[in-house]
Amino acid sequence: MKEVMAIVRMNMMNQTKRALSEAGISSMTAKEVLGRGKGLVDYKLLEGAEKGYEEAVAQLGQSQRLIPKRLILVVVPDKLVSKVVKTIVKVNKTGKSGDGKIFVMPAMNSFSVRTGESGDSVLDEV
Amino acid sequence: MKEVMAIVRMNMMNQTKRALSEAGISSMTAKEVLGRGKGLVDYKLLEGAEKGYEEAVAQLGQSQRLIPKRLILVVVPDKLVSKVVKTIVKVNKTGKSGDGKIFVMPAMNSFSVRTGESGDSVLDEV
Amino acid sequence: MKEVMAIVRMNMMNQTKRALSEAGISSMTAKEVLGRGKGLVDYKLLEGAEKGYEEAVAQLGQSQRLIPKRLILVVVPDKLVSKVVKTIVKVNKTGKSGDGKIFVMPAMNSFSVRTGESGDSVLDEV
Repeated sequence: MKEVMAIVRMNMMNQTKRALSEAGISSMTAKEVLGRGKGLVDYKLLEGAEKGYEEAVAQLGQSQRLIPKRLILVVVPDKLVSKVVKTIVKVNKTGKSGDGKIFVMPAMNSFSVRTGESGDSVLDEV
Repeated sequence: MKEVMAIVRMNMMNQTKRALSEAGISSMTAKEVLGRGKGLVDYKLLEGAEKGYEEAVAQLGQSQRLIPKRLILVVVPDKLVSKVVKTIVKVNKTGKSGDGKIFVMPAMNSFSVRTGESGDSVLDEV
Repeated sequence: MKEVMAIVRMNMMNQTKRALSEAGISSMTAKEVLGRGKGLVDYKLLEGAEKGYEEAVAQLGQSQRLIPKRLILVVVPDKLVSKVVKTIVKVNKTGKSGDGKIFVMPAMNSFSVRTGESGDSVLDEV
């Protein structure tokens, strides 16, 4: 059982949701977040800021700005991790900076509050 | 040490919070999220949509709608996981679809920013 | 690879972001959350509430109030975990209750949606 956490562009939320649904993954949780990937920081500026140049510090403030993103969380049986990752990549890949990241984390158990059941059976199994 | 992440009905947040407090779990983080469980998707519709029937695709859009939910996050020592899960289930179980899910994930360490302490001692221990 | 999740004071978000950036950690996700640490619950009240004293239950409602906080999430290679934790503690430590908590969780893999790459290379490596 794994937790897959994807951070994608705000305007890709609906397509991602639909693609996951069509891949059989209907259980998901979504949150509005702010985020930034690697490489958005200008390291020359950073160096200047560390040395205390006020102009660099001021500009650094700009480059640090976090961007509104959407976080999608799905917990799936091990065998579905690759399908979920591929589905999210396929829908969200534009090739431009800011396409997003996907993280895979171990999950130990899942419980259905309604039935009291636990394990893979409370997850989407395709 | 484990991370317990529960997704419950919006209007169950206060009761859940109180029940956890009364069980000795006072540390928690809550977020507003959107979510959907398994089984809310009509698979006949889905099949139609995959085959490209426009009517099915249109309706699928509806059934995919995510519902406002509350996510509650607690990190607890191993021995408290079962108590936390049972407490959340007990309060939130109505037997109707949408009661929620609970996920248990491994956690490696916890730090108190104020004291610099780490380990189980920074968590609620009942 | 580890997921570091920090819950800090609302007004410490910018300083924390900047300090992480200056430490070379530019990828991060931030969320508005509500939270409460251990120790904010008056256990005498709690005892009274468990015994059913209405006055205690009423007051308990107050002490359970969750406080607006900021959650910061970074996924980093193992060797950077300690640097991230120290950076967050250094910026956020006032010595007063409410300084926050940091949790370290295992992460199994990371994918860049843009490049399709996976592993440590999609993370900040300093």
